Amino acid sequence: MSDPLRLGIAGLGTVGAGVVRILQENSTIISRRAGRDIRISAVSARERTKPRGIDISGYAWEHDPVALALRSDVDVHIELIGGEAGAAKDSVEAAISTGKNVVTANKAMLAVHGQKIAELAELAGCVLRFEAAVAGGIPVIKALSESMAADRIIRVMGVMNGTCNYILTRMEETGLAYGEIFREAESLGYLEADPNLDVGGIDAGHKLALLTSIAFGTRVDFAGLEIEGIQKITIEDIEQARDMGFRIKLLGVARMTDDGMEQRMQPCLVPADSPIGQIKNATNIVVLEGAAAGQIFLRGAGAGEGPTAMAVLGDVVDIARGRRISTFGQPATSLQPSRPAQSAEVGPYYLRLLLEDRPGVLATVASALGDAGVSINRMRQYGHESEAAPVIIVTHRTTRNRINTAIEGIVGSGASLSDPVALRIEEL
Amino acid sequence: MSDPLRLGIAGLGTVGAGVVRILQENSTIISRRAGRDIRISAVSARERTKPRGIDISGYAWEHDPVALALRSDVDVHIELIGGEAGAAKDSVEAAISTGKNVVTANKAMLAVHGQKIAELAELAGCVLRFEAAVAGGIPVIKALSESMAADRIIRVMGVMNGTCNYILTRMEETGLAYGEIFREAESLGYLEADPNLDVGGIDAGHKLALLTSIAFGTRVDFAGLEIEGIQKITIEDIEQARDMGFRIKLLGVARMTDDGMEQRMQPCLVPADSPIGQIKNATNIVVLEGAAAGQIFLRGAGAGEGPTAMAVLGDVVDIARGRRISTFGQPATSLQPSRPAQSAEVGPYYLRLLLEDRPGVLATVASALGDAGVSINRMRQYGHESEAAPVIIVTHRTTRNRINTAIEGIVGSGASLSDPVALRIEEL
Repeated sequence: MSDPLRLGIAGLGTVGAGVVRILQENSTIISRRAGRDIRISAVSARERTKPRGIDISGYAWEHDPVALALRSDVDVHIELIGGEAGAAKDSVEAAISTGKNVVTANKAMLAVHGQKIAELAELAGCVLRFEAAVAGGIPVIKALSESMAADRIIRVMGVMNGTCNYILTRMEETGLAYGEIFREAESLGYLEADPNLDVGGIDAGHKLALLTSIAFGTRVDFAGLEIEGIQKITIEDIEQARDMGFRIKLLGVARMTDDGMEQRMQPCLVPADSPIGQIKNATNIVVLEGAAAGQIFLRGAGAGEGPTAMAVLGDVVDIARGRRISTFGQPATSLQPSRPAQSAEVGPYYLRLLLEDRPGVLATVASALGDAGVSINRMRQYGHESEAAPVIIVTHRTTRNRINTAIEGIVGSGASLSDPVALRIEEL
Repeated sequence: MSDPLRLGIAGLGTVGAGVVRILQENSTIISRRAGRDIRISAVSARERTKPRGIDISGYAWEHDPVALALRSDVDVHIELIGGEAGAAKDSVEAAISTGKNVVTANKAMLAVHGQKIAELAELAGCVLRFEAAVAGGIPVIKALSESMAADRIIRVMGVMNGTCNYILTRMEETGLAYGEIFREAESLGYLEADPNLDVGGIDAGHKLALLTSIAFGTRVDFAGLEIEGIQKITIEDIEQARDMGFRIKLLGVARMTDDGMEQRMQPCLVPADSPIGQIKNATNIVVLEGAAAGQIFLRGAGAGEGPTAMAVLGDVVDIARGRRISTFGQPATSLQPSRPAQSAEVGPYYLRLLLEDRPGVLATVASALGDAGVSINRMRQYGHESEAAPVIIVTHRTTRNRINTAIEGIVGSGASLSDPVALRIEEL
């Protein structure tokens, strides 16, 4: 058996504490599987004495995560601090600067600074792994970058933010409005300190940007993502979708098109009886679609202490076993820049309009759609008592640009009493 | 970039031809991801000139797969011949004897001779990978042995034989009897040359035995599996199960109990709306349940040229990247022998009886169940015109031993007109 692999753990929140706990509980099986002992040399966190249900007295303590990363008795730096930059990024760069391997759960940092950090790691001959950053305990990074390494990836899709899916699931179950369920989620502690990271689609967008890079061999381009949150979804949308056999999910989709890279994180309608449509509450699902493999569905807990800590330690065992792989599945310097797709995105759309209830209004709407080249599949005006007539339209396959043109036409005509809502219907 | 990795491909059936095709089509992305070129040096098959839709003129030809495995211009031996022993095993052992790494899709060989082959490989310092042997394109071997390497596995479950699931799905959809759908599957070429490998549960049992070894660190014990095929499933079973909210699946379950290793491959009732219950036709699903990870569901194509060939090449890319892992996730010599569990298996059961239609018969059955300590949850006798009364019983949680005792009692009483059918209801 080789020398022990020595870890420095930066951050002892839920995931960090979970990593310590699993390492302590499963040390025998982990050593047997890894082929060597895996030990914690030192830890770092904001507070040393906070109760965490774990005994850290056997590990050296560093107040500063950068100092932790620089310790000579640390082989692998485990970054569980979080945040796009700051101490997380500083400590990762420090670890790399001294030739240490890095395991992180930090999607924000990698989505924004991933290219630079991957290049640094490569230059220094370090391994940087991040299975826990995407969909918690679901082995999606490994499946995409290793199992499917010989395949040409067609599309990647995923429901990857448990909080958003919890809110949408609860809205459907209770018939309560977004605001009420949002407050429920808040009181349960399901939301990030900045809730927009969750409900605004940012967190899930970070994850998608990482998957896109691996899938298509492109530089991480979080800025190129089309991101829309779930804040505008009404209970009417959920009920209308359900009546038509759909569910609304905050769905990430990445696809390389002739016109550039399509990366969207937005509420979509998906068939209610599809594997994606059936994902409830905080569960995550990712679909990896390859030319040879077809669709591979991976489903499980997308967050939580156990699943996320296990994912971190899966990466650690890989490193203990001597595994080497480029951060995004191929050398960082070989990743290609990509151009966001402008008009290639083709699919049916769901439109919800609130129209003035006067003769000729529907004709105006129909004309605006026709002028934009959008053809109507289904249209229904549902019962109302006010002077505003709610109208749902499902279009045939079209482009987002055409939908936007049609919406401009509708709004310009003065027929619309509120901002029209347009949701993509994703064909699985 | 390192030297090219040179392959010898033994077997050019569906999967072998697929491997050649994907390597030819995706050579650029594969090289970029693997960090080196992957080339085929030589191939071997029964017939050289059979039309396969691929050009093999650029590769050396070996009639004998053992000669192929011994070639000095081959670094990795790809065994796609199949079969428990014979040329497949001979060629794998020959490859190992000359220090070559091996990738195989051969579940039968590994389920029966896996321990010995893994020990040979270890002694010779060779890597032996077999992702394609279990559930085709679904990365279950990798998820279990790598992603979950730090977790304590609780249970492994899976629907892993597409032909059986196709037959059961079609029976439910058409209302036709097993025999008719069996012949349909046969005419579509879905069955192995020896159909019992499929419908008898052997093929799926081979796969389960491999997963069990990785999950629990035990020696592969295919002989210790409790195997039951789907041949006795009637359309009545399927309809009765459906009426109670279940579907019947050929389900593999492995779990370590206080009483030994529980390994079953048998038709089970599962909730119709569960991810396992919803798997249709040839799709496979595997559930990996860890103490930390919770349940991870992996779903996809369990067979077919593209998915299986991609899985083979995923292993090849791993080897090209310098990856080393023990065959069953830990050194073969450290795998523990396991004892099959005798009575620990606890769960509810579904019983179908065909009883004499005379007074007192139901009382006899109820007594036999009570005497065996089996308690009844639901019981229904359904309409019939003959003198035989069909009765369905769903029990509370009990053991297989008690069910067997009850069945002996029922049969012994003379009340039963045909062999009782007992199916486990698997709680997800």
